[in-house]
Amino acid sequence: MKLLEDGVPLAELSIERIARTAGVGKATIYRRWSGKEELFVDVLRAAEPEDPELPGTSMRDDLVVLLESLRQRGVASRASAILHNAHTQMKSSPKIWAAYSACVIAPRRRMGLEVLRRGQLNGELRADIDLELANDMFVGPMLIRSVLRPEADLPEGLSEQIVDAVLTGLRAGGPCRS
Amino acid sequence: MKLLEDGVPLAELSIERIARTAGVGKATIYRRWSGKEELFVDVLRAAEPEDPELPGTSMRDDLVVLLESLRQRGVASRASAILHNAHTQMKSSPKIWAAYSACVIAPRRRMGLEVLRRGQLNGELRADIDLELANDMFVGPMLIRSVLRPEADLPEGLSEQIVDAVLTGLRAGGPCRS
Repeated sequence: MKLLEDGVPLAELSIERIARTAGVGKATIYRRWSGKEELFVDVLRAAEPEDPELPGTSMRDDLVVLLESLRQRGVASRASAILHNAHTQMKSSPKIWAAYSACVIAPRRRMGLEVLRRGQLNGELRADIDLELANDMFVGPMLIRSVLRPEADLPEGLSEQIVDAVLTGLRAGGPCRS
Repeated sequence: MKLLEDGVPLAELSIERIARTAGVGKATIYRRWSGKEELFVDVLRAAEPEDPELPGTSMRDDLVVLLESLRQRGVASRASAILHNAHTQMKSSPKIWAAYSACVIAPRRRMGLEVLRRGQLNGELRADIDLELANDMFVGPMLIRSVLRPEADLPEGLSEQIVDAVLTGLRAGGPCRS
């Protein structure tokens, strides 16, 4: 965190330099992490808001909590220069991006798909929709705002708004459609 | 294009080197582009599929064409090592990303908002939905697949699927909802 705070670019972050800054030997680092990619992902994970607990009361409520956690990450990344810098650097390093995808993004994605699967079983979600597509429909609008458009608004209430609008649909004509 | 094909990193792409490769003087380049950022964005724009013509038959059809153009860009970026490399490099350069956003992404976004505004006027789109949010709901699922998840499927028919699912909504219960 100290090195990231100092704005050291990822390419200059070696295990040797990290060990020196932490005042330990390289062996101590390697006992816990197999390389700087894994260490970097763990640092990020510690700095980001934690993964949410799902209330389990309904698919709709679980989805709101999942999206709210994405929104909070976006808000945190805007507020923290370190996190923002780390996210930007990560995207330019295919190895770290792959590690972050596998350790952080993939489990969250599985959690979302599981919520949707339960929703199909309990009759909240259309049975004829592909779960991967449904997941992208709920998560996509929040992700492009928090990740791709750093100038976009992430107001409170956005998670509920997205989930309810995706459930209800945008076609005009009220709840009874032709 | 030759320099990108050779895998020259963005940081090493100077106007001087570009002029030398093209066999012209630097002044010739500067007559047309104010800097390497502008030049790079124009190269990308020439290599990517062109912006679509909207059929104008309905909001739904216009949205399908807009999403289809995003899908084609994703497919092209996967098929072309140069485009893929250029997109990746661009994301790690804030200056080029800003130029690309202003010259390519912002006009497309305005086009999408205009299509939605017409849809609200002709009664295809709910009048009570925020246009920015509606745009993110249509575009988000396609964008995260084409930009954030390079391993995701971009099958034919995906544009229609997304537009129709966002219009209809994902709540179970058929067209008549409680």
